[in-house]
Amino acid sequence: MSVQGINPRNGQPVGEPIAETSAAEVDAICTRAQAAFAVWSRTSREERAVVLEKIAAALDASTDELVEIADAETALGQPRLSGEIKRTSNQLRLFVSVLREGSYVEATLDSADPGIVPPRPELRRMLQPLGPVAVFSASNFPFAFSTAGGDTASALAAGCSVIVKAHSAQPGLARATAQVVARALADAGAPAGVFDIVYGTAAGSSLVQHPAIKAAGFTGSTQGGRVLFDLAQARAEPIPFYGELGSINPTVILPGAAADRGAEIAQGYAQSLTLGVGQFCTNPGLTFVPKTLAMELADAVAKTAGGAMLTARIRDAYVSGTQSLAAHAAHIANGLANENAYGVQPQLFAVDISTFAQDMEKYTEECFGPAGLIVTYDDVDRVLALLGRLPGSLTAGVHAAASDQAAAAKAADALRRIAGRVIYNGWPTGVAVAWGMQHGGPWPATTNPLHTSVGATAIRRWLAPVTFQSWPDALLPPELQEGNPHQIPRRWDGVLGAQ
Amino acid sequence: MSVQGINPRNGQPVGEPIAETSAAEVDAICTRAQAAFAVWSRTSREERAVVLEKIAAALDASTDELVEIADAETALGQPRLSGEIKRTSNQLRLFVSVLREGSYVEATLDSADPGIVPPRPELRRMLQPLGPVAVFSASNFPFAFSTAGGDTASALAAGCSVIVKAHSAQPGLARATAQVVARALADAGAPAGVFDIVYGTAAGSSLVQHPAIKAAGFTGSTQGGRVLFDLAQARAEPIPFYGELGSINPTVILPGAAADRGAEIAQGYAQSLTLGVGQFCTNPGLTFVPKTLAMELADAVAKTAGGAMLTARIRDAYVSGTQSLAAHAAHIANGLANENAYGVQPQLFAVDISTFAQDMEKYTEECFGPAGLIVTYDDVDRVLALLGRLPGSLTAGVHAAASDQAAAAKAADALRRIAGRVIYNGWPTGVAVAWGMQHGGPWPATTNPLHTSVGATAIRRWLAPVTFQSWPDALLPPELQEGNPHQIPRRWDGVLGAQ
Repeated sequence: MSVQGINPRNGQPVGEPIAETSAAEVDAICTRAQAAFAVWSRTSREERAVVLEKIAAALDASTDELVEIADAETALGQPRLSGEIKRTSNQLRLFVSVLREGSYVEATLDSADPGIVPPRPELRRMLQPLGPVAVFSASNFPFAFSTAGGDTASALAAGCSVIVKAHSAQPGLARATAQVVARALADAGAPAGVFDIVYGTAAGSSLVQHPAIKAAGFTGSTQGGRVLFDLAQARAEPIPFYGELGSINPTVILPGAAADRGAEIAQGYAQSLTLGVGQFCTNPGLTFVPKTLAMELADAVAKTAGGAMLTARIRDAYVSGTQSLAAHAAHIANGLANENAYGVQPQLFAVDISTFAQDMEKYTEECFGPAGLIVTYDDVDRVLALLGRLPGSLTAGVHAAASDQAAAAKAADALRRIAGRVIYNGWPTGVAVAWGMQHGGPWPATTNPLHTSVGATAIRRWLAPVTFQSWPDALLPPELQEGNPHQIPRRWDGVLGAQ
Repeated sequence: MSVQGINPRNGQPVGEPIAETSAAEVDAICTRAQAAFAVWSRTSREERAVVLEKIAAALDASTDELVEIADAETALGQPRLSGEIKRTSNQLRLFVSVLREGSYVEATLDSADPGIVPPRPELRRMLQPLGPVAVFSASNFPFAFSTAGGDTASALAAGCSVIVKAHSAQPGLARATAQVVARALADAGAPAGVFDIVYGTAAGSSLVQHPAIKAAGFTGSTQGGRVLFDLAQARAEPIPFYGELGSINPTVILPGAAADRGAEIAQGYAQSLTLGVGQFCTNPGLTFVPKTLAMELADAVAKTAGGAMLTARIRDAYVSGTQSLAAHAAHIANGLANENAYGVQPQLFAVDISTFAQDMEKYTEECFGPAGLIVTYDDVDRVLALLGRLPGSLTAGVHAAASDQAAAAKAADALRRIAGRVIYNGWPTGVAVAWGMQHGGPWPATTNPLHTSVGATAIRRWLAPVTFQSWPDALLPPELQEGNPHQIPRRWDGVLGAQ
């Protein structure tokens, strides 16, 4: 059995097939990752920062080579793909900052107090790496959520070894990227086995069930994520499984905004909906629109271009998803047709809010790709009343004018409970890599609403706390020693920032 | 069906039976908790701090009444039980400090930067309450890990509503404590339904599967915890389930310490092993001891008193657990017999390290109660070589003298990977309530090694992040507003502590 990349433009094979990784090979790779963890988990934050910088530089230096392979396997085009490599290397650089700043270990020191109930010995707590981590690549971000993407970067930064399960549609790119990462790691002196890659669905199942694996990250479909989540939870030792799954990203166009700048909103919507052939987990799938603005959105979508989707399977799911929407909503616009092998055209559907409210479940399943559903309304209070009942999403947003502030406040109050990121006067596509980013949300947006897969705190997923009680200073990790030799921010007797 | 407390001293019923909560009642209680969450989650940190202070004061004021019921249902005795109430009210007070200090919301503000890849809009991130929470009471801490215990305190502090599943052996105490808590909440003006209690195993299963419940905390047996964990993960919407399960708490007596202060160590060990009839999750179940010290430990245990265990079931499990140990290890000491209905005597078993190492699984299952297994050794390197292979525990420790520092360092390096708290020259029983406490660990100590059920960061279990993107200042929560009106510690553009 092997995996084979296919060019979405012409349906022809790209490169050679790559053999699927056997269960025995997965076992050997996991054993090596466990041995590497023993070494890597003991490196200093600064040592790992230097290694991550080298991986980032190696990715940048390999841009031309990798983009060529990526474009053949994804049809996403050179500008998008080279931008995405830069995003990916900058993601590594964010974790370099996180490692050097040091507060992510949450160093917490308590003096002894024998007089309180219960008595308190000297306690010193910090976060430490969990163990070898499995990372399941997404197809729609061949760099940023793939072999060298955010899960890999944050887990390596944490001090965990990483085994990537390559996306089966991009085996050539996965292998080429893995070679760049592995070479940079070896050049930097990281232990052999700290990073590896496996191919094939069966290898992914073996990986998430292997006793050496202590956590897993996943970006992909709700169905695929649920299967792996269930395997991870059914283990003799269940492990944290961080899956980023489906999201409809509800957006509310408030009446004042629609009146003030309807044309601009229609343009922005059409652009966000069709960017990258709509293949973003933050695609604006569900939008509440005043009735008066509906046709303007339809006109804007009608002018958009389609494109090749990533795989035949994704294209087929888009076709059946849009057919299902057409059965329950009015089909009000088609974008331009596309002649690529896996080409699709953008589509827009509309339903009035009464019909929507009667049977929300029919309308709130993600249709991955450049298809939007608009829910038209006259009375904004009807929209506000149902926002809290929408399924969990990665993002939600409102477009508001000065006259909409009261409604915007109510919308924010509801949307913050169902989405990880709530946006004001913006579109959901585009996920910044920052300290304050939250890329997560309630089920089915993710399998665990406590975490994010983008931004500085993504590292928290691969860390567990340990408290040292009454240890001699010389035997403590430097982060917890009396003199704070690395000068990191700490909490001492409850006061944050005290050294 | 009903639940009935039994006096462990005489096997006789205590108080009246309490009816089990029906599935329909559980549903109604969950619906009320959901409505209460909408109100409680919007209260300010200061409002919740004031409410928690009132619950703490109400518990203190009810000490005599509650201790009397608790003693009848648990036989733990007045001194221990009144100390435990104080611990429980102090736990609430720790969360009052956590709420007022405010850094637990992890307020993180990023300025916009359109020039980087990818471009960054203005982002403001904080943690917010997850939703209604289920709390499963433990029997061995009738106050501190029960109706008004750490899970309840931390979840209420977070802004979640709480439904407690009463331990079936302590229905009278659970009801009396719930009345104290409910009265204090009502007096303080908290919304009706923010706290409630259910009775019976079936009610617990209904609770953890109810769609309104968004997370669950549990302290108890590995078997019972696993059943509930599996129910929580099998839901259409899986939820975080924080179970604190079994733990053997390995301790290593290093050679120098044994030579320097063998008698003191033997005393300390016997006391920790038999405290509270050994009914602590941090009981020192497995201890590595130089051969020369083994008989001293046996002599110390022989002088200890037994007592009544909490329930017939726990007593029966202790009897079968000690029989299983006796089949594989030498039975080297009995403590004093105990005439209570559920009375047991302490027991000590020994096995040499070669036998132990050949078949570790036989010797590393928790035997809840005052039974210890000592593993005797001549060569400390053999001990150090196998510590990393022990199952996950809440605690682990070493006793060391000046001559043992190199071995202590190696032991710490291994033990920090398998235990949540690593202790130097101390015994594991006694869990301080502090900012720096970690009460957790790898499976089977807990179902999720990222979290703690004791200490300030226990609140993190009930919180999820949300990021506000580009919102007008007036529509942001105060924690994220430009001027930082509550003056809490925040991170701004990556710098912690900046206002």
